[in-house]
Amino acid sequence: MDCCHYHFAGEGCDSAFTVDTSRITFGRGCLNEVGDRARALGMKRVALFSDERLARLPHFQKMHQSLLAAGLDVAVYTAVRIEPTDQSFLEAARFAAETRPDGYVSLGGGSVIDTCKAANLYATHPADFLAYVNAPVGEGRPVPGPLKPHIACPTTSGTGSEVTGITICDLLSLQAKTGIASPALRPTEALIDPDCTASLPSEVVAASGLDVLSHALESYTARPYVRRPAPARPSLRPMSQGANPWSDLGCREALRLMGLYLERGVADAQDHEAREQLMWAATLAGIAFGNAGVHAPHGMAYAVAGLVRDFRPSGYPQDEPMVPHGMSVIVNAPAVFRYTAEVSPERHLEAARCLGAEARGASPGDAGEVLAGKLIQIMRAVGMPNGLSGVGYSEADVTALTEGAYPQQRLLQNAPREMSRPVLTQLFRQALSYW
Amino acid sequence: MDCCHYHFAGEGCDSAFTVDTSRITFGRGCLNEVGDRARALGMKRVALFSDERLARLPHFQKMHQSLLAAGLDVAVYTAVRIEPTDQSFLEAARFAAETRPDGYVSLGGGSVIDTCKAANLYATHPADFLAYVNAPVGEGRPVPGPLKPHIACPTTSGTGSEVTGITICDLLSLQAKTGIASPALRPTEALIDPDCTASLPSEVVAASGLDVLSHALESYTARPYVRRPAPARPSLRPMSQGANPWSDLGCREALRLMGLYLERGVADAQDHEAREQLMWAATLAGIAFGNAGVHAPHGMAYAVAGLVRDFRPSGYPQDEPMVPHGMSVIVNAPAVFRYTAEVSPERHLEAARCLGAEARGASPGDAGEVLAGKLIQIMRAVGMPNGLSGVGYSEADVTALTEGAYPQQRLLQNAPREMSRPVLTQLFRQALSYW
Repeated sequence: MDCCHYHFAGEGCDSAFTVDTSRITFGRGCLNEVGDRARALGMKRVALFSDERLARLPHFQKMHQSLLAAGLDVAVYTAVRIEPTDQSFLEAARFAAETRPDGYVSLGGGSVIDTCKAANLYATHPADFLAYVNAPVGEGRPVPGPLKPHIACPTTSGTGSEVTGITICDLLSLQAKTGIASPALRPTEALIDPDCTASLPSEVVAASGLDVLSHALESYTARPYVRRPAPARPSLRPMSQGANPWSDLGCREALRLMGLYLERGVADAQDHEAREQLMWAATLAGIAFGNAGVHAPHGMAYAVAGLVRDFRPSGYPQDEPMVPHGMSVIVNAPAVFRYTAEVSPERHLEAARCLGAEARGASPGDAGEVLAGKLIQIMRAVGMPNGLSGVGYSEADVTALTEGAYPQQRLLQNAPREMSRPVLTQLFRQALSYW
Repeated sequence: MDCCHYHFAGEGCDSAFTVDTSRITFGRGCLNEVGDRARALGMKRVALFSDERLARLPHFQKMHQSLLAAGLDVAVYTAVRIEPTDQSFLEAARFAAETRPDGYVSLGGGSVIDTCKAANLYATHPADFLAYVNAPVGEGRPVPGPLKPHIACPTTSGTGSEVTGITICDLLSLQAKTGIASPALRPTEALIDPDCTASLPSEVVAASGLDVLSHALESYTARPYVRRPAPARPSLRPMSQGANPWSDLGCREALRLMGLYLERGVADAQDHEAREQLMWAATLAGIAFGNAGVHAPHGMAYAVAGLVRDFRPSGYPQDEPMVPHGMSVIVNAPAVFRYTAEVSPERHLEAARCLGAEARGASPGDAGEVLAGKLIQIMRAVGMPNGLSGVGYSEADVTALTEGAYPQQRLLQNAPREMSRPVLTQLFRQALSYW
């Protein structure tokens, strides 16, 4: 590991980094702890968020039971929309405002946890929806104070939402994905039970695993924190502060675990060791990107998911066309890292090595190709589509994709190289097909 | 890195681990952020803790200025005792109770930060001194609620107190070191400015660096969390929960940095890169041991420091005999790791490799010797005394040292092998001289 952590701040740039993490409990069966932990946080009346499918499964029943056994009053909300919208966020917030819980528990994937964060925010500090939404789409108003305690329990080894201060939704009026980013949104605690992933379809493990892998790769290659302009006040330092020694550590370990366990976890749902390690990698990558930020592959993914026409992947609900989040990210990744490798070839080579690539004797000029090659090998091994063409796009869509991605400046500015419109167009074109 | 993170819980043992971390800001010059950060935490009236020597130095002035510039009312307390006692803790608590601050800032080594934690505790939740002290010496009563916000700013690359929920003092009536351990004591934020270490004497960098190194080694080799009996309720899981995948990650990185930078940072105060990396290693090791716990070398150190006769190390104040904390720890370490290697040889070998030892071809049976050998080489390189005999003890003291260490059951039970009285006696004997 030859990564140099010794950063010199550029002129006018930041010279320190700030990291935050939720309290995390990790282990098989730890969902049973929720009642005791909610009580220890002072909760008496809990809003329990999940979705309709999960609410019929044993994990939900177990948690509900644990909360009741701890003597808590529980109000259940399962009307969470997968791929939430501003409208579904506000419906959840209305439920919260009416129910008046003194704490929140969420069980689900990113959609459930994100919806719970938004409900907690708008019920605790009511405001117009756009008030807290990231600028320039919204006003980007700072959250005025702490929220109610929230225990987040992820059921996929994916989004990392349980440890980040970010919530994402579709803004229906603009047909665009947007989000809210504030340390106040970070759940108070995360209960991470790898048993939840034992019943996930292979396709879901593959797509959410590649989301994790890209969280780690993007945070590791993000613009270093010492190249980001210093904030007006130190307490306004953004969570997407760029690569730093703390996030680097989690990224390298997440990449190493992904290299060892992703193919195993996808191939065999009974491989408990692999699925546990993928859940741990998701946690580490979540902590890392929550303190460093992702960049172009995620920024481009907003457009890839948003403009979907008729792609219906196996392993997912077939009622609406969709590109699963991890898939919409990873189809961009090889093209992006071929482009970004030039500015930090050592980091790109080190990332490839962590994933298990044979990189002995590789020169800095080979870095982009070594990392992209390793990514493509993993994508093929776990059944990902062949780039954008594999999810229904063609050359004719490149302009629309560019226009869809370009407004994601919060993410694009966290990339280590310029992401202008012409660059994005070129990257989307190169992402059409990889093999 | 061949460490297996896949833990099977033993019968009646814990099956999950819980980790917590303070918000951390790290970077040159970040002490200037204290005013803005204190205000962002809602502080209006701040108690600023330091010691008399530091209060005359520019870092203290800079912080004081930053707090005043942010419009805060500041009450200064510098009567901190180096090697605090129950009495000095209570004096500080009296100051806090009279001053009634709504937040605390501490600038100093472990003594200052620990004193500030204690003052915050006893001023916020008044009780008899022994109420919160760890059993069996004290009652071990849980802290009944949150404390006032505390921003801790370490000036040595050592104790890790800025990120742990532990405070240590001498109990004068029993002539014994004891402590209080509670997540409530963990500072809200840590501001870690490596510039603070630029003026430290070499001897202090060496001793505090070996404290850090031992935090990492002890946490890495501690009894795994799945071998510790499950707590009565999950929310009572102790902070000294044993080795876990989270602490392992910080330990390995801290050991790697120590192997690369300790000798450089001791040899040359102008080597800013080395001293910055030592500060970062101290942070990582502090996070790790705050969530895993240390064991025998620290437990034995209480006796080594407590029974000192006339040892006066250079680089430290000469008014009283003392064994600096890191020195009192590291003189035990080679003997302890020779003994513990038998139960987890792979971990001991991996630790030695992280420190830079040549361990190719080493068999499990060599693990204790490889790690002890590497430690001894580092101790000699940075001018540590030759074991217990180097700090004034002889064979005649072994029984007294054993009796002094044996009550430290909180630490000794976190060791991976039994630490009975006869074992401790044997380890102290083997620690008398190493070369």
